[in-house]
Amino acid sequence: MKTLGEIAGYVGGRLRGDPSVMIERVIHPALAESSSDLALILSAKGTSMLASGKVLNAVVPEEAEVESNLNLILVKRPRLALARVLELFECPVHVFRGVHPSAVIDSSARIGKNVSIGPFCWVGPHSKIGDNCRLVSHVSIGAEVTVGEGTLFHSGVSVGDRCRIGARVILQANATIGGDGFAFVTAEPGSIESAMATGEIRSFNHEIIRINSIGTVVIEDDVEIGAGTCVDRGTLGETRVGRGAKLDNLVQIGHNVTIGKNCLIAAQVGLGGSSKVGERAVIGGQSGLPDHLSIGDDALVHAKSGLTMHVPPKAIVMGSPAEPKQRYLVEQLEIRRLPRMAKELKELRRQVAALSEKLKSLAPSDQSDPESQA
Amino acid sequence: MKTLGEIAGYVGGRLRGDPSVMIERVIHPALAESSSDLALILSAKGTSMLASGKVLNAVVPEEAEVESNLNLILVKRPRLALARVLELFECPVHVFRGVHPSAVIDSSARIGKNVSIGPFCWVGPHSKIGDNCRLVSHVSIGAEVTVGEGTLFHSGVSVGDRCRIGARVILQANATIGGDGFAFVTAEPGSIESAMATGEIRSFNHEIIRINSIGTVVIEDDVEIGAGTCVDRGTLGETRVGRGAKLDNLVQIGHNVTIGKNCLIAAQVGLGGSSKVGERAVIGGQSGLPDHLSIGDDALVHAKSGLTMHVPPKAIVMGSPAEPKQRYLVEQLEIRRLPRMAKELKELRRQVAALSEKLKSLAPSDQSDPESQA
Amino acid sequence: MKTLGEIAGYVGGRLRGDPSVMIERVIHPALAESSSDLALILSAKGTSMLASGKVLNAVVPEEAEVESNLNLILVKRPRLALARVLELFECPVHVFRGVHPSAVIDSSARIGKNVSIGPFCWVGPHSKIGDNCRLVSHVSIGAEVTVGEGTLFHSGVSVGDRCRIGARVILQANATIGGDGFAFVTAEPGSIESAMATGEIRSFNHEIIRINSIGTVVIEDDVEIGAGTCVDRGTLGETRVGRGAKLDNLVQIGHNVTIGKNCLIAAQVGLGGSSKVGERAVIGGQSGLPDHLSIGDDALVHAKSGLTMHVPPKAIVMGSPAEPKQRYLVEQLEIRRLPRMAKELKELRRQVAALSEKLKSLAPSDQSDPESQA
Repeated sequence: MKTLGEIAGYVGGRLRGDPSVMIERVIHPALAESSSDLALILSAKGTSMLASGKVLNAVVPEEAEVESNLNLILVKRPRLALARVLELFECPVHVFRGVHPSAVIDSSARIGKNVSIGPFCWVGPHSKIGDNCRLVSHVSIGAEVTVGEGTLFHSGVSVGDRCRIGARVILQANATIGGDGFAFVTAEPGSIESAMATGEIRSFNHEIIRINSIGTVVIEDDVEIGAGTCVDRGTLGETRVGRGAKLDNLVQIGHNVTIGKNCLIAAQVGLGGSSKVGERAVIGGQSGLPDHLSIGDDALVHAKSGLTMHVPPKAIVMGSPAEPKQRYLVEQLEIRRLPRMAKELKELRRQVAALSEKLKSLAPSDQSDPESQA
Repeated sequence: MKTLGEIAGYVGGRLRGDPSVMIERVIHPALAESSSDLALILSAKGTSMLASGKVLNAVVPEEAEVESNLNLILVKRPRLALARVLELFECPVHVFRGVHPSAVIDSSARIGKNVSIGPFCWVGPHSKIGDNCRLVSHVSIGAEVTVGEGTLFHSGVSVGDRCRIGARVILQANATIGGDGFAFVTAEPGSIESAMATGEIRSFNHEIIRINSIGTVVIEDDVEIGAGTCVDRGTLGETRVGRGAKLDNLVQIGHNVTIGKNCLIAAQVGLGGSSKVGERAVIGGQSGLPDHLSIGDDALVHAKSGLTMHVPPKAIVMGSPAEPKQRYLVEQLEIRRLPRMAKELKELRRQVAALSEKLKSLAPSDQSDPESQA
Repeated sequence: MKTLGEIAGYVGGRLRGDPSVMIERVIHPALAESSSDLALILSAKGTSMLASGKVLNAVVPEEAEVESNLNLILVKRPRLALARVLELFECPVHVFRGVHPSAVIDSSARIGKNVSIGPFCWVGPHSKIGDNCRLVSHVSIGAEVTVGEGTLFHSGVSVGDRCRIGARVILQANATIGGDGFAFVTAEPGSIESAMATGEIRSFNHEIIRINSIGTVVIEDDVEIGAGTCVDRGTLGETRVGRGAKLDNLVQIGHNVTIGKNCLIAAQVGLGGSSKVGERAVIGGQSGLPDHLSIGDDALVHAKSGLTMHVPPKAIVMGSPAEPKQRYLVEQLEIRRLPRMAKELKELRRQVAALSEKLKSLAPSDQSDPESQA
């Protein structure tokens, strides 16, 4: 519980109204019920929802024009205010305090202070869990894993042997860290090599040999990993997710990948083996980056892009195959116009044929008749 | 075990043959072995599989012409008959009867009648599990979760705190309900905002602030959620999956999404945050819907579509960027013809140049020579 | 620990240097520290990393030219040598020896010799686990499952009732084998049927009936299944993954699918129900195959392809909709040229109009004026 005045101060907003009002709940304006509810309005348009009369206290964008009988916190950047208010009114996940009797902690593991380990969690030999970590339930921590302070493992997270997880990392449910890389080779050149060399399939993958992964995964501090997301371990070295990077759900990170600091990678993106993502890059949902390619610092890859070459720093790309955004949009416009263009071309051919005929009638003996060469 | 007569009655088919034959197994026609096997044929073409002589009893489409020495159930809608027969011959998943001794049920949780809770399941504080629910194994139910009657949780399902799951819901293995939304903001306008405002990346995501999710997920009655599928919780309010909706495997549902009743959403679809899917919409596999867009009632989105704008009710769309199906198909046809069009254009340029030359020779002093302006 | 001589013999390489050197670690050249480290260089370009002076022993491509003061193993096919060396220097996953006290093994289950079953694993009634199998942790094996010898289950793997898993299979963490198929039918023809028959949505999915899956999954010997990957069971019969096939992470395999031997299926691929993949086919990441389609033996499907028809054996296809690679690349090139083509067409129209005008001035009474028909 905070007063409106305290909240306004914390979010850096300007209060118009009673600073002493106690706020118990932060809610969507449609759900406001009581005088201790604080509704959050993210856009000037959204202020229409205040008309219901149920909302008494609200955070609104500075530029919104709102009747003055409400208690308002006016903010410059509403989405930032939302983040700040939700720091004050967080609902942390329920975790068993201490180590649940059903948990299995290997005797050689080292558990920090104030760690919460829920039901059916397993911590393997020689692993170290930092202070204030929370393992909700069914978490599997293999052998020789290290985990920094304050990291949160939701239920069903699996961390393979020797992986290193930083401090204040959040791993959503059923994420897998440290699976083996998808790496195989044929004894003789196989179909992919044939296709690359000759454009045809002339040799065949009759025998497939596994390349074992003996490397690890490093998840740096302040990273978030989405539910169901998979980060494979390196073949010899590391797969690394840089400090502050955020990965959404069901993302695939191949072996030996490097992801720079503060990247934002949306759901269902796939990064092929040994690919490289620069710092602060943003990758839209369902995009794919093939093996060994790279995305530059601060680049922006729109959703569902299929990359086929390196993306320079600060580039904005989209499409599959991906292209610079401006070029892609122009081409898409031209594709929309193709049926008309085909019609115009047809009409032009008719006109030229008619012109040619007419010219022939004017100069019938001429031998440079263009039609005859068509 | 049912008689052919009982089965014919249940599926609403017309029996031709002996109604008293006892059926023990329903099978693919290729696997028929015994006189108590009932083969299911879904198309007139499939009746050729009856020639093997192994099949003695079969469900066949009404219009199929089949020799009369077999016991046949003739049906109007074979796929519906398949559904009905498999209601009679279901193989329900094995679940431990009662509460397995290894399960951990918080003392404040309330468990209904006739509930089956298998090994290593956890039910958190103040959660309520309805009558006749089944939890196969390794299910994680957080705190303050409510579950309706007859719901089935396969192994490894994770349900986060405060989520509400309806009655007769089926959650396939390793599904995650109630992960946190992928929601972040930069203190100052970041690269995405810069790209939107200027078309270039001029500001950078040097600091990324998390927006905590304090909302929930509501899964209404009779929904099915596929294996590995993730449904994120709302930021302030709910993410909602409407009654009777069916989600396939590895689907991503972002925060604040609303899915209408009876939707069918195929595997690996991604729905961005705050997107909205109308009732009875059908979305093909691997399609993506960006944040804040909507799909209308009864719309049909073909597989692998990349939506970039709202889809009206009853629209049929495909492609990436998605378009109305008819327009998309015409454009694709034109793209196939592009090499020919390029050739035609080249030839036409040659002809026009030749015509121009010829005309010049006819009227050499004319100053309106079109070539000179090219 | 092996000597360089032993390693050279095992990988079939030519040793240049001291065969008696003891090797303790195999590493990326950038991480070499000690005289017992063996660095692996996969390409001639990579030999520049030897200049640091830290590497004393290396595996290098035969054609690389390297100073002779190092101990070198020269190999013809470096990626194969990598695989072979990593057979010698594997880091097998940590697994509890024997059956962990927390594991739950149904009394009717049969466990082979030398099986390792880690914490929180469950083996259901009448299931059989072959000799030398390893279950890391949180593995769920349902009822009547059979597993061949030497198979490895990483943490969180779920195997449904009656599935059959071969020998030497590797299942990465959180994979789901034997989920129910995504199969439904409407009582009356629904929206999809309407769209197919009429091109419009005239009937609606007001009632959706589930088609229960009573079939199974068969995973043949030597298969690898990636983390988070889902393989649904057959409706009546089997879903089958052929011997030696390798599936990457987050792959979706629908009900009744057949995958041939030695296929390579990259991350996030989706195979629709009843689709069929021939032997040794290779499918790039994020590609999709709709229901009932097939891919021929040895075909190569590039990443992010959206297949819309059968792929013949040995075909190389790409794009969405997918096409033969050569045709696809030509069309993409033409799309790049579309803006220029549009400009050329416009200019041509101008020229033809000018020619037409000129011609009119030469023969003003002519009635076959092409413009008038435009």
